[in-house]
Amino acid sequence: MITLLVGTNRPSSRARRIANYYQNLLTELNAESQILDLAELPDNFTTSALYANAGTNPAFNRLADLLNAGNKLVIITPEYNGSFPGVLKAFIDGLPYPGGLREKKTALIGLSNGGQGGMLAMTHLTDILMYLGSIVLPQRVRLPFIGQDLNQEDSLNHDLSRQLLREQAEALLAF
Amino acid sequence: MITLLVGTNRPSSRARRIANYYQNLLTELNAESQILDLAELPDNFTTSALYANAGTNPAFNRLADLLNAGNKLVIITPEYNGSFPGVLKAFIDGLPYPGGLREKKTALIGLSNGGQGGMLAMTHLTDILMYLGSIVLPQRVRLPFIGQDLNQEDSLNHDLSRQLLREQAEALLAF
Amino acid sequence: MITLLVGTNRPSSRARRIANYYQNLLTELNAESQILDLAELPDNFTTSALYANAGTNPAFNRLADLLNAGNKLVIITPEYNGSFPGVLKAFIDGLPYPGGLREKKTALIGLSNGGQGGMLAMTHLTDILMYLGSIVLPQRVRLPFIGQDLNQEDSLNHDLSRQLLREQAEALLAF
Amino acid sequence: MITLLVGTNRPSSRARRIANYYQNLLTELNAESQILDLAELPDNFTTSALYANAGTNPAFNRLADLLNAGNKLVIITPEYNGSFPGVLKAFIDGLPYPGGLREKKTALIGLSNGGQGGMLAMTHLTDILMYLGSIVLPQRVRLPFIGQDLNQEDSLNHDLSRQLLREQAEALLAF
Repeated sequence: MITLLVGTNRPSSRARRIANYYQNLLTELNAESQILDLAELPDNFTTSALYANAGTNPAFNRLADLLNAGNKLVIITPEYNGSFPGVLKAFIDGLPYPGGLREKKTALIGLSNGGQGGMLAMTHLTDILMYLGSIVLPQRVRLPFIGQDLNQEDSLNHDLSRQLLREQAEALLAF
Repeated sequence: MITLLVGTNRPSSRARRIANYYQNLLTELNAESQILDLAELPDNFTTSALYANAGTNPAFNRLADLLNAGNKLVIITPEYNGSFPGVLKAFIDGLPYPGGLREKKTALIGLSNGGQGGMLAMTHLTDILMYLGSIVLPQRVRLPFIGQDLNQEDSLNHDLSRQLLREQAEALLAF
Repeated sequence: MITLLVGTNRPSSRARRIANYYQNLLTELNAESQILDLAELPDNFTTSALYANAGTNPAFNRLADLLNAGNKLVIITPEYNGSFPGVLKAFIDGLPYPGGLREKKTALIGLSNGGQGGMLAMTHLTDILMYLGSIVLPQRVRLPFIGQDLNQEDSLNHDLSRQLLREQAEALLAF
Repeated sequence: MITLLVGTNRPSSRARRIANYYQNLLTELNAESQILDLAELPDNFTTSALYANAGTNPAFNRLADLLNAGNKLVIITPEYNGSFPGVLKAFIDGLPYPGGLREKKTALIGLSNGGQGGMLAMTHLTDILMYLGSIVLPQRVRLPFIGQDLNQEDSLNHDLSRQLLREQAEALLAF
């Protein structure tokens, strides 16, 4: 079971649509997957699931527990203010330690309206994931200009992007 | 007016105590300052102050408006999971764009229980601040082993740390 | 006097041609500049100008001394293997310490054949420059797909890139 | 066969002495290893082994070929100016592409006289290695205050550092 982590709590985000696309790709490759969408986070989780309250919020725990279904993970992160969304890091800050992300094999995808394609989001995330003991795949996929390339049916009008995602998925399965 | 931004919403955090220390330092140097403590964030700000709701939460706006009192800023960030707290980035994600941090002259301080001293937290933050048009002081101060060095009266038992903070404060005032 | 540092020792590099373009831009803005091209480094500088030999190579010193002509600097770096050229860092490693880059106001430009545009090259360089006490302008300019956009007369067939470079140059002059 | 890459061309460097220490550690763990010390680089390699001359310098090629002896690598990098030595990156810039570091499993060690312990050197290197298709172990070991901790017999007077290096070596062998 591969978990696809949608790295923002924005409702109906493009990151979620990329997760849908990736789930289809994994199905084609005969791999099972599930989606963990941060849009489902309880709205007060930054107090009710952190610090003295760590581990006590059932709605947060339900999401966190999805990470335990397998040892492979794909994190799909939009670019907010040049890096990943704060909410994604706050979710990570609420996970049990050690555990949560430890020894997970993790693939990263960054998306942006502009041309950066989440490069800094992914390099910052890599530091955090390595600190937590995750093994990050070297194939970090940038999806720049996503507003142009993602169409209504959640498919990608961009040959190279589709190829890079497929190569990444195959590498994750073989890892 | 210099704003001291406490980069976590943990109540009564060590970062807050460093802010208290720094405020005394600035007073000695005849500079006015105010503290913006993320512990005062509304507990549901990651939904009520972001995306479709950006700009509509009065309690969030009151904190964000503190940034407009001057053009100098000190960000004091603990190290959570090898980087800055997600809540700090989520606060930044809720600020008006452009604006908020644009053209602010910003000094960074990182603190940690371990030996890293928030180095990665500060380098990640630098990328975000530069993206938003802030000018970051080169004097980034690491405060490792803060659990040993910060005492009951919010003073620092560490000569080099005290010296680095003073040199940073002087550089910020001269900038 | 603004120094334009060409961040590779490759002869007749694209980075050099961007330096030529930028020099014309600065002339239009009534600012004097000079070009420091690492193609002029002595070919054995990694031994003859480092460690026990630091400061003893006249050909290296002549280049290093160009940095002392003023307090503003533009570093134009190609992207080699996802970051800046090792030769650029080796040149920095041979500079006198402290000094060389200390208190310089520095603008960064990254160029690449691919889509990254030297983003990681610039973020890595920022860390090094801040360590050395340089003040880095927040306007870091990415020039992706430079093989398409740079034409025979060293001008740029890309409106946004030309605009970003002009805004950066104006910000550097005003800094 | 595990290759221990000494990331500076400084003669008789501390990084080399850490490589000696690590080689003993690997011998204890019944693993074969060899040392690739950049002090053996030809002194003009930044011109004679790069660009038009790539692949034509036999002395450079002899060192580069050592990387082909196995699929596991340890890079030991001192901290120069807040990051890794330029010479290390220039060596990487001269390697055949793709190849050289592709699909290598790589462990990183950073050392410094000061307290940073090569954290930024290692995070910058991680970006470069991932770009080149290496898989970087999450266990990145910082060795701060190395001037105090490394003694005459190339052993380490620091319990935690010894433990972290051993855990890293075991993780590399199991990877």
